[in-house]
Amino acid sequence: MAVNAESSLFLKQVQSHIHERLSDFLCEQGRSAPRLREAMAYSVLNGGKRIRPALLYATCRAGAGNMAMADAAAVAVELVHCYSLVHDDLPCMDDDDLRRGLPTCHKRYSEDLALLAGDTLQALAFSSLSMAPAPAPICLHMLRTLADAARDMAIGQTLDLAAEGSIIDLVQLENIHKLKTGALIRASLLLGALSAGWTDSSTLAALEHFGDRLGLAFQVDDDILDIIGNTDVLGKAVGADQRLGKATYPQLIGLEAALELSAQLHKEARAALAELPGDTRYLTELTDYLISRDR
Amino acid sequence: MAVNAESSLFLKQVQSHIHERLSDFLCEQGRSAPRLREAMAYSVLNGGKRIRPALLYATCRAGAGNMAMADAAAVAVELVHCYSLVHDDLPCMDDDDLRRGLPTCHKRYSEDLALLAGDTLQALAFSSLSMAPAPAPICLHMLRTLADAARDMAIGQTLDLAAEGSIIDLVQLENIHKLKTGALIRASLLLGALSAGWTDSSTLAALEHFGDRLGLAFQVDDDILDIIGNTDVLGKAVGADQRLGKATYPQLIGLEAALELSAQLHKEARAALAELPGDTRYLTELTDYLISRDR
Repeated sequence: MAVNAESSLFLKQVQSHIHERLSDFLCEQGRSAPRLREAMAYSVLNGGKRIRPALLYATCRAGAGNMAMADAAAVAVELVHCYSLVHDDLPCMDDDDLRRGLPTCHKRYSEDLALLAGDTLQALAFSSLSMAPAPAPICLHMLRTLADAARDMAIGQTLDLAAEGSIIDLVQLENIHKLKTGALIRASLLLGALSAGWTDSSTLAALEHFGDRLGLAFQVDDDILDIIGNTDVLGKAVGADQRLGKATYPQLIGLEAALELSAQLHKEARAALAELPGDTRYLTELTDYLISRDR
Repeated sequence: MAVNAESSLFLKQVQSHIHERLSDFLCEQGRSAPRLREAMAYSVLNGGKRIRPALLYATCRAGAGNMAMADAAAVAVELVHCYSLVHDDLPCMDDDDLRRGLPTCHKRYSEDLALLAGDTLQALAFSSLSMAPAPAPICLHMLRTLADAARDMAIGQTLDLAAEGSIIDLVQLENIHKLKTGALIRASLLLGALSAGWTDSSTLAALEHFGDRLGLAFQVDDDILDIIGNTDVLGKAVGADQRLGKATYPQLIGLEAALELSAQLHKEARAALAELPGDTRYLTELTDYLISRDR
């Protein structure tokens, strides 16, 4: 797990909390298929950074929301994230051998089991969320938000693969990232807001704008890290983007401009945060942490 | 499409109706990713038998239910079914080249696109259902039912793959089929019942028992067809089960006993139907049609 000097205490607390929730939830699933359970647990309980649950809890906290509702939603967004990583790593996709410093799911088990573990994790995400201790209209709103994000994420991944080896411009690159990474980040914030009973449209618009800027900053930083990062810290091979012929911000606008863009997006994310009601201290802490990860 | 002399008029009507609904729904999705849309349409609008939507509509009709609600649910169950077929056909799974007489999705497009089309279709199923014009508690109940079925289907598929080439008994085989095929059939019936406002527990229990017997009969017949069927009629290669070393009913108990079991399950399914309220004529028609498919 990449944790730098300015580590977020809140993120650490979330990591430990969501690990328990995910572990408890998976424990109840697929008893008749022990290898599948093992592959799912391997892919989920592996020291992931839990950024999406953290953003969800931080938003829920900002609105002094319902933590039990947030728990079900946080489990759901993390399961969607984990399923996408398992499928992204498959040989027909990014063909990655390492994930967080360990063999990827299909390397540790097999391709068919990794495919099915991913499929099951996606279904489990909706199963978890549909059991959230929330009023039916809110729970339904959450499910709709997650389903649309899961759809957009898969569409973004498709556009990303299609763009490999071809020339795309900044607008296209931003669109890919908004879908591939941004959709689930935005959904995490919205699910946190729903747990907190936020319904005011200007508040939700500010939150979406925040998520938009944060998601993009996160992706720009990811591209930068792929060039100047450290394999040991990242837990995956550096230079993978270049190897796969992926369009990146540094490649399109140069490393210096990418670093400037990251700083600008950070500023805009902080400005959007200032428009939110409640105690946004954890959202601020996470923003500062996420946009200054180990380089 | 396999349609025998005793074809079901109701099924034909459903096929045409759900084709329009699926086509309309997919038309609104993934505009920014044309290849993905094409791969999804190819995998969904391909003359499938639409058995699950038909069972759903037939149950809804039995309870004189809400057809708009049934539409959203029928689209959802068929999308889950189609996603599972796309993934099942992949090289790391059953490695099938043909589906309904046409190249499978990964053969027509590519493995990565087929994987992502399947992933997107699963997300779209929940997206469609979450927009059903139904009261929130009913819509939520439907989503929970579908999510659990999608989970069980993937678990069943895992158990089925794990059983390949190994010796299993009748109890294990029945468990695999209950999950792999039965779960989504049962969910289709329950979603139809929810569209019709059926909440009485003894009615729902009779419906589940019906689905259980029908699902099993359907699978026993599928196994029989794999031995004595006709490739032209089936639209896929005969003898695939044997090639893959899959356990089947004819293999475990012999062809004659499998035919008797099919007849017995048919009788039990009809008996369960008799316990349901409302006008079950379409459910009866479908049952008779499904358990006397082309051999």
